[in-house]
Amino acid sequence: MPSPTSAYLNLKECEVGSALNDILAPSSIAIIGASADPTKRGFKALVGLKKDGYQGNIYPVNPKLDTILGIKTYADVNALPSPADLALVCTPAKTIPHILTQCGANGIKGAVILASGFGEVDAEGAALEQQVLSAAKAAGVRIIGPNTSGVFNLHKKLNLLALDNVQAGDIGIISQSGNMLLALALEAQRNGNIGFSTYVGPGNQIDVGFADYLQYLGEDEHTRVATFYVEGFKDGRAFLDVAKDIAKTKPVVVYKSGSTEAGKQAASSHTGALAGSYAMTVDLMRQAGVSVVNHSDEILPVAEGLGSLQQAAGRRVAILADGGGQATIATDRLLESGLALASLSDATQRALSQILFPQASLANPVDVAGSTDANPRLLAQCAKILAQDSQVDMVFLVGMFGGYGIRFADELKAEELQTAMDLAEFSCQTSVPLVIYSLYAHVSPAPLTALKDAGLPVYDSIEHAVKMMAALAQRGDYIRTSQITAPAQPLSVDKSVEALFKQAQSEGRDLFEFEAKQLLRAYGVAVNQELVIAGQHDMAAVLSTFGSDQGLAMKVVSKDILHKSDAGGVKLNLRGETDLQQAYDEIMASCYEYDKQAQIEGVLVTPMVPQGTEIIIGVTRDAMFGPVLMFGLGGIFVEILEDVAFRAIPLSRQDAESMVQQIKARKILAGVRGAKAVDIEALVDLLLRISAIVDAHSEIAELDLNPVIAYDHGYAIADARVIVTR
Amino acid sequence: MPSPTSAYLNLKECEVGSALNDILAPSSIAIIGASADPTKRGFKALVGLKKDGYQGNIYPVNPKLDTILGIKTYADVNALPSPADLALVCTPAKTIPHILTQCGANGIKGAVILASGFGEVDAEGAALEQQVLSAAKAAGVRIIGPNTSGVFNLHKKLNLLALDNVQAGDIGIISQSGNMLLALALEAQRNGNIGFSTYVGPGNQIDVGFADYLQYLGEDEHTRVATFYVEGFKDGRAFLDVAKDIAKTKPVVVYKSGSTEAGKQAASSHTGALAGSYAMTVDLMRQAGVSVVNHSDEILPVAEGLGSLQQAAGRRVAILADGGGQATIATDRLLESGLALASLSDATQRALSQILFPQASLANPVDVAGSTDANPRLLAQCAKILAQDSQVDMVFLVGMFGGYGIRFADELKAEELQTAMDLAEFSCQTSVPLVIYSLYAHVSPAPLTALKDAGLPVYDSIEHAVKMMAALAQRGDYIRTSQITAPAQPLSVDKSVEALFKQAQSEGRDLFEFEAKQLLRAYGVAVNQELVIAGQHDMAAVLSTFGSDQGLAMKVVSKDILHKSDAGGVKLNLRGETDLQQAYDEIMASCYEYDKQAQIEGVLVTPMVPQGTEIIIGVTRDAMFGPVLMFGLGGIFVEILEDVAFRAIPLSRQDAESMVQQIKARKILAGVRGAKAVDIEALVDLLLRISAIVDAHSEIAELDLNPVIAYDHGYAIADARVIVTR
Repeated sequence: MPSPTSAYLNLKECEVGSALNDILAPSSIAIIGASADPTKRGFKALVGLKKDGYQGNIYPVNPKLDTILGIKTYADVNALPSPADLALVCTPAKTIPHILTQCGANGIKGAVILASGFGEVDAEGAALEQQVLSAAKAAGVRIIGPNTSGVFNLHKKLNLLALDNVQAGDIGIISQSGNMLLALALEAQRNGNIGFSTYVGPGNQIDVGFADYLQYLGEDEHTRVATFYVEGFKDGRAFLDVAKDIAKTKPVVVYKSGSTEAGKQAASSHTGALAGSYAMTVDLMRQAGVSVVNHSDEILPVAEGLGSLQQAAGRRVAILADGGGQATIATDRLLESGLALASLSDATQRALSQILFPQASLANPVDVAGSTDANPRLLAQCAKILAQDSQVDMVFLVGMFGGYGIRFADELKAEELQTAMDLAEFSCQTSVPLVIYSLYAHVSPAPLTALKDAGLPVYDSIEHAVKMMAALAQRGDYIRTSQITAPAQPLSVDKSVEALFKQAQSEGRDLFEFEAKQLLRAYGVAVNQELVIAGQHDMAAVLSTFGSDQGLAMKVVSKDILHKSDAGGVKLNLRGETDLQQAYDEIMASCYEYDKQAQIEGVLVTPMVPQGTEIIIGVTRDAMFGPVLMFGLGGIFVEILEDVAFRAIPLSRQDAESMVQQIKARKILAGVRGAKAVDIEALVDLLLRISAIVDAHSEIAELDLNPVIAYDHGYAIADARVIVTR
Repeated sequence: MPSPTSAYLNLKECEVGSALNDILAPSSIAIIGASADPTKRGFKALVGLKKDGYQGNIYPVNPKLDTILGIKTYADVNALPSPADLALVCTPAKTIPHILTQCGANGIKGAVILASGFGEVDAEGAALEQQVLSAAKAAGVRIIGPNTSGVFNLHKKLNLLALDNVQAGDIGIISQSGNMLLALALEAQRNGNIGFSTYVGPGNQIDVGFADYLQYLGEDEHTRVATFYVEGFKDGRAFLDVAKDIAKTKPVVVYKSGSTEAGKQAASSHTGALAGSYAMTVDLMRQAGVSVVNHSDEILPVAEGLGSLQQAAGRRVAILADGGGQATIATDRLLESGLALASLSDATQRALSQILFPQASLANPVDVAGSTDANPRLLAQCAKILAQDSQVDMVFLVGMFGGYGIRFADELKAEELQTAMDLAEFSCQTSVPLVIYSLYAHVSPAPLTALKDAGLPVYDSIEHAVKMMAALAQRGDYIRTSQITAPAQPLSVDKSVEALFKQAQSEGRDLFEFEAKQLLRAYGVAVNQELVIAGQHDMAAVLSTFGSDQGLAMKVVSKDILHKSDAGGVKLNLRGETDLQQAYDEIMASCYEYDKQAQIEGVLVTPMVPQGTEIIIGVTRDAMFGPVLMFGLGGIFVEILEDVAFRAIPLSRQDAESMVQQIKARKILAGVRGAKAVDIEALVDLLLRISAIVDAHSEIAELDLNPVIAYDHGYAIADARVIVTR
């Protein structure tokens, strides 16, 4: 796909020194376990290399043959005349450690290991996998796989899968399913305009993983879009870290399977229960600038568009249609996808009116109402007028363009071809993406082929085109915000807080609620004044601390009592000395009755918190993605509707703001039924502080503020819980 | 599409007497405004009829020509040698009334009117439209259009659109967009296996409308699926009524555009605000057995599948895959669509294990793990084993079947063809639908063509296949429940209730709350005892009516005070005589102060209702669909989340039950956080009674029970409002 825009992606120069470049773009290759049996991969790979005209040295290794396909064959790796950059290893699992040692000794930098029978099978396989990894590390050889479907780099004419009919292009593809690659290759073939740069099947990822492949594709000059089919990450955080950077200059597209899998983590909290979910993965990917696609048949349409078109400056789309039906469908899909119909300026509508029939509809969606039936070139003029309107971020041409000559009159074919040229030319002069859907896309008439040749994708589904446009808009958002986002400032650690954690760890317990709040207070979070009282206590003094008009709550403080209410350890709405004393006595009596052995530190006295909007903020350390913050409204919103947003810690201000806007319940935060809006700025500040605290304190395994009560000014933290890393 | 199942759709015999049959399957046709100009419809239609070999008489009408294309031409309709069944009218708008009169006088039964310039344009056009309708009625001529894109009936070789490359088949299609028909025709051409029976562009629907077309397609022997692209109904209720019946024997597929339009009705209540929404239309369509598709690119895939395969007995799917990637994707899409993975019996797994490799995955999704690479016929054996499991309602074959010969070895092509025969044969012997997705679908290799020829659709998108399977399951549900559904019994109208309405109507007001509750009580709805008191009243007697331990509420009764709380007309939690008297006096004082002119009937005294789950039940008479009932939880669920369900009145018991299960908040009704489940049986009973009441009383314009408080036993109606038809 040639670029239709001059100021396109700022592609990095191909860095020859990149970690994987020698391996994935090798200048020479050894085929270990080369074969003369046409059913074997060790033969097929050689056929592929020969047929495609691979330019580097090819060294088949097989102790029993002199030549295969006329290529000189070597008895073993030691016999190679010069080191190969890459080895394709076709031999069985148990041979691999020894072969890697030989590879290392002979300067081979990487090995693609096809064999299965490792960690994916059983414990014995897992042990062998460890041996393979040790051998590779000792030998200094990087491993792709094992249990990989293989690798191709079509710009190097290196197709180790011997996959037919794949055309070189600019989509890099990493797929954990070989059949998925096959499906995408067949789809690309049907499209006719999509080609691939590099493919890798990551297999068991014992060494090189998704993050490394992303880094490689990010640096590869032949790749415009890095595309991933992922069943499971080994190190999701590493992928996010690389994506965050790469996505600034190159689109990263991820289809993550398992959207309906239940979260896999133990559910000691709501955050824990929802973390590990597909929704969390999607949130974290988007935070890192990744374009997530939800349907497998959208992977290539989205990748093709992102690779060909510039990101959109916003979400406002002008629809240009030559038929009412498609205009209506396009409108529905746009609005469903979070895009908007641009409001066209008077000047734009006037300009359109001068070239279209009077019955044309000039408001968005623009319907030419037959004006172009005999004169398709008007479509290009209209598109140009629309793109010049400052209210328009994308132009969406929908209808039968490309088919006028087929449907109406042969003479129109030349006109249409000229229109395609006009469209291609004007799209080079504008930063407004021009997205085209045609009824005739699959017929591939000349005008549409011309558009594709000029780097303008032509969609055969309104639905897919709109998904792609949503990705263009999201990518625009990411690039803009990544330019203004200052990295989060690390906290300077508070000594007294460190002492709190040491104490808790030494006692083998988590933080008490009052300690959790002390931690928050130390880092500037607004926490109400509290008292822990124990033994004989002057309740008058307690009252005077809080002011006598303040209702108070009491909660037992004990590492042994986890369910305080069940133990009778909570009393609410207390007023006056007698009330307090009685509550204190009752709590003590009830809790000792509940657990005679309980070690009770005392009772926490807190002011009752006025009613407001219940928020939940939780942090967990996800096994795959590291520390993650969850935000949502409490109660049914988290428990029934799972209406929450996730971000990887540390959060930028934009991250915090966007997660508040992401939840469906944002309407409640904005104020409903006459209620005032809550203080969103205060919540954003709170999210950022929590992020910074967790970032600074690896002692925090989990943190839950549930609920935080949000008001029109500020918030109150009604409960805080911190689980300490053991 | 030949049927793969012997016990297939119970197609009605073609009823020759059907209202539209003579018109849409005419034995003779007049082309009024026939032309020799190749750009005119009056020429193109003739070309189409001649080229396709239409067997009936063709009468071109044109006063200036003797023949067109060698066909004798008549000066006017009066000159025709015998009556034509149908006239295609190509003349301008203003000529139409006169032509219709002539048509009627000469025995022409129907007219397809292409001209535009009627109600869709301006008031003058609308007046002309009325003239056309009057002329048609007087002449006894049915009208298709005006402003229609035209008609075809491919089994009659009658293609008045002169649309190229459409193949006769069994999908009937009614589309309000001509371009949408073109898009579907091109898609069918690409698919290669889809053909059409009858097409109509309904145009302005001044006479024949969607319901009539559905009736025709339902009775047409050549149509297996009635498919609709709808922008707007004129009489939605008529369509529902016909669909309800037709859908029992023939699939009805509807794509309704405008999914993102805001509801159009005045919002005097929550029900009113949400009625008229796209969500309501979808609910009502599904209630009537219609398969609603949400994306335009799913119309044909869903129609093709519903037309070829038997409905599913349930939602449990067995996936049979030859690759992990597609199995995972299919699983995600199935679960997202409300389908389920079948639990395979031990016997099934044992039978599979006997023919598959040891590494095959025998639990659902079944992954053959290479077992079939050299032996594709095993796929048919596996499919058969799966279909025989009583836990399996559908079998979904996903992967590269059809491409084994292409990808692996030429010899496999014959094997695959035999496998296709096996699959086709076995699918004739089972009622379990076999749904096939293939990576190679668009390549159309011989095995896949053989499947299609045998009536088994082959999908090129997992997403589309799954949408179709969800439609098969939904259709199965509809057919099953329509067999057990007893029609709702009409109420015998209560005389005292009739009097209530008369009274209110004569006073030009709506029902007072106590009257609304009286209405409900008269028809067996559980309503708490209430009193209306006025003037000097013995509060001790009031107390004794309710029992002295019962908290009471008072609300002013006045047609002039709509916002009772604002007027100080509501007092809650009253206990004891003094309380009551004081509340009464304050209400009176406050309300007269609020509106000096108010006519106050007195004060309604009701017991305070205990806390529970707030439900909202509302009824509105939709302009398009007639009386419609809405059900949902109150508060944020209706206001923010719009989590409600609609059904057309009268409801069957299954309708009422399904609407309670449809809302997302059903989890709350089922009991959360240790709360007991609410009494769903009582709610269902309430919904049925409300439906019957509204059905019996056309005096009810709107009805709102908001809130109903639901308990673990029974419910309480906390407020009731009935707007009276004027």
